Amino acid sequence: MGITITGTGSYIPETIEKNNSFNNHTFLNTDGSTINSTNEVIVEKFEAITGISERRYVQDHLSSSDIGAFAAEKAINDANIDPETLDYIIVAHNFGDVKHNTIQSDILPGLAARIKHSLRIKNPKCVAYDILFGCPGWVEGVIQAQAFIKAGMAKKCLVVGTETLSRVVDKYDRDSMIFSDGAGATVIEQTNNDSGILAHETASYTYDEAYYLYFGKSNNQELPSDTRFIKMQGRKIYEFALNQVPKAMKTCLDNSGVDIKDVKKIFIHQANEKMDEAIIKRFYRLYRTPEPEHVTPMSIHKLGNSSVATVPTLFDLVKHNKLENHSLSKGDVIIFASVGAGMHINAITYRY
Amino acid sequence: MGITITGTGSYIPETIEKNNSFNNHTFLNTDGSTINSTNEVIVEKFEAITGISERRYVQDHLSSSDIGAFAAEKAINDANIDPETLDYIIVAHNFGDVKHNTIQSDILPGLAARIKHSLRIKNPKCVAYDILFGCPGWVEGVIQAQAFIKAGMAKKCLVVGTETLSRVVDKYDRDSMIFSDGAGATVIEQTNNDSGILAHETASYTYDEAYYLYFGKSNNQELPSDTRFIKMQGRKIYEFALNQVPKAMKTCLDNSGVDIKDVKKIFIHQANEKMDEAIIKRFYRLYRTPEPEHVTPMSIHKLGNSSVATVPTLFDLVKHNKLENHSLSKGDVIIFASVGAGMHINAITYRY
Repeated sequence: MGITITGTGSYIPETIEKNNSFNNHTFLNTDGSTINSTNEVIVEKFEAITGISERRYVQDHLSSSDIGAFAAEKAINDANIDPETLDYIIVAHNFGDVKHNTIQSDILPGLAARIKHSLRIKNPKCVAYDILFGCPGWVEGVIQAQAFIKAGMAKKCLVVGTETLSRVVDKYDRDSMIFSDGAGATVIEQTNNDSGILAHETASYTYDEAYYLYFGKSNNQELPSDTRFIKMQGRKIYEFALNQVPKAMKTCLDNSGVDIKDVKKIFIHQANEKMDEAIIKRFYRLYRTPEPEHVTPMSIHKLGNSSVATVPTLFDLVKHNKLENHSLSKGDVIIFASVGAGMHINAITYRY
Repeated sequence: MGITITGTGSYIPETIEKNNSFNNHTFLNTDGSTINSTNEVIVEKFEAITGISERRYVQDHLSSSDIGAFAAEKAINDANIDPETLDYIIVAHNFGDVKHNTIQSDILPGLAARIKHSLRIKNPKCVAYDILFGCPGWVEGVIQAQAFIKAGMAKKCLVVGTETLSRVVDKYDRDSMIFSDGAGATVIEQTNNDSGILAHETASYTYDEAYYLYFGKSNNQELPSDTRFIKMQGRKIYEFALNQVPKAMKTCLDNSGVDIKDVKKIFIHQANEKMDEAIIKRFYRLYRTPEPEHVTPMSIHKLGNSSVATVPTLFDLVKHNKLENHSLSKGDVIIFASVGAGMHINAITYRY
């Protein structure tokens, strides 16, 4: 039996926000003090570290569940299945629907119920639930779909990752430039193929790390203190990720029995280019093996960090030959890996 | 193999809010018009339908994840397990942490990560995620724990339902009197017992029903229209629940192979006394069997509707002989059943 991704889809929002659009922002330090650099210098440093030159924002009338439904529809068409045959719709996100110019997360009903409603699926046996698991939510949704299939509770699952971080950023915080909007979706099916999930690994580090990413007040101390935004302790996250993500990826690959030399692509959460490069470098160093060329497709330069959406979007782009120097052939072994708020880490070794 | 509830715990908030505390509220119709009744009459009618005479609210300094951790700690002690041996912490809720006197849901990090942090569990292999699934979230969390155990991915899971609806009610809406705060938790383990889950059933009705429970504006039209609260279309929910919940319960019981006459207790989501009574009546009518006495423990009179917390709290009270006329003996067959936002319905047939 294979537990196989039979269809993918993504939604890349239309509004392109280039780095120079931040030139007139007022960036402040966390204590509210002025930063002793011009915005041009701030943005230049930002791009050198993160690799981000532009990012995408949704149009004002759209919310996370809307774009999740767009991506879902493409994945269903790509898999060429009748949506009424889906057993599960699993939707990963971290802020729910936040309407333009409002500050409340709307998660009643959950986004999975909204997306199922938008897809006009009638079958009540199709169970639609939301998972909150930080940026690794989409990867974890795939792992949960695998569990339902293995347990005999499902044959076809739709797993969606959707996020509109543009609605929860503090515009006085430099880190706001990292975040973007997007949605990716995949159909996971029980098949008779020899392609599919070979192994997985998940870890939740909450003892010291639970609040490395958190909901906090603006750097502008004149704003109301009870309005909160996405915030991160960047340096701590960087160190944590470098220490723990390569190890989790190694455990996952070793459990699959596949040799490191047979790994063709690594689809890693698009968090920050320098951090991602350092993680991949350490991963190969654990095997004392040189890192091959073009092993890590990257979309962060143009798409930014859209949380749960980055991995399924990246996979969708490569699967459909939309990323230069990257393609997939039947039988290729690939790794999905992610890290984010919680702090959670996960990885899947997969035969394409 | 049994998939067994080995420990339970609940947290019943300290602040008792009696019906007469609503006597000075200004209740309005949804269009903002005045209701042509005194508050005494409104409250009397409310109590006649819902059965609720008082409800519990958390103290100002507590949030949903705090009380979820209190309940979790009790369940872990009741199961007498080392918390470091847990493979999963699954937390069901619908609004995240909403601090007193604020309007934002804080779900970064997720509540499962916060609860694991509060429990001081170090083991990174203990995966902590949140599920959003309306009021049936706790029951669904148990069904997911079952999937992980069946798939060989877990042996011990903690499933928590926690909610502070007092933080999201519209005080101009009569329905606000229904909602309360609470938390319930259970430890689910793979055992060699013959007790455990016998069958389950889940259904998501989203085609027409997705927005029967929703996040909407206040009945007081002078309040800002972008501040939203928990809202429901009560009559539609009532009719929907009466039509669909008994059928789902019957499917679940029939799949277990257990005779209706052997059902000892039904732990149904404490939504509204009249609705719950009508559901149970219809369920027995589907079997042309008279409803036995004391089959349905109820806590709604004193605890109100605390969403995901009602079923695990009720079970915890009965398990520990804290509800008059209700007790459990080894081998008893019981049913857990719930219905709520999504609209989702689920049920579990369980041998105690």
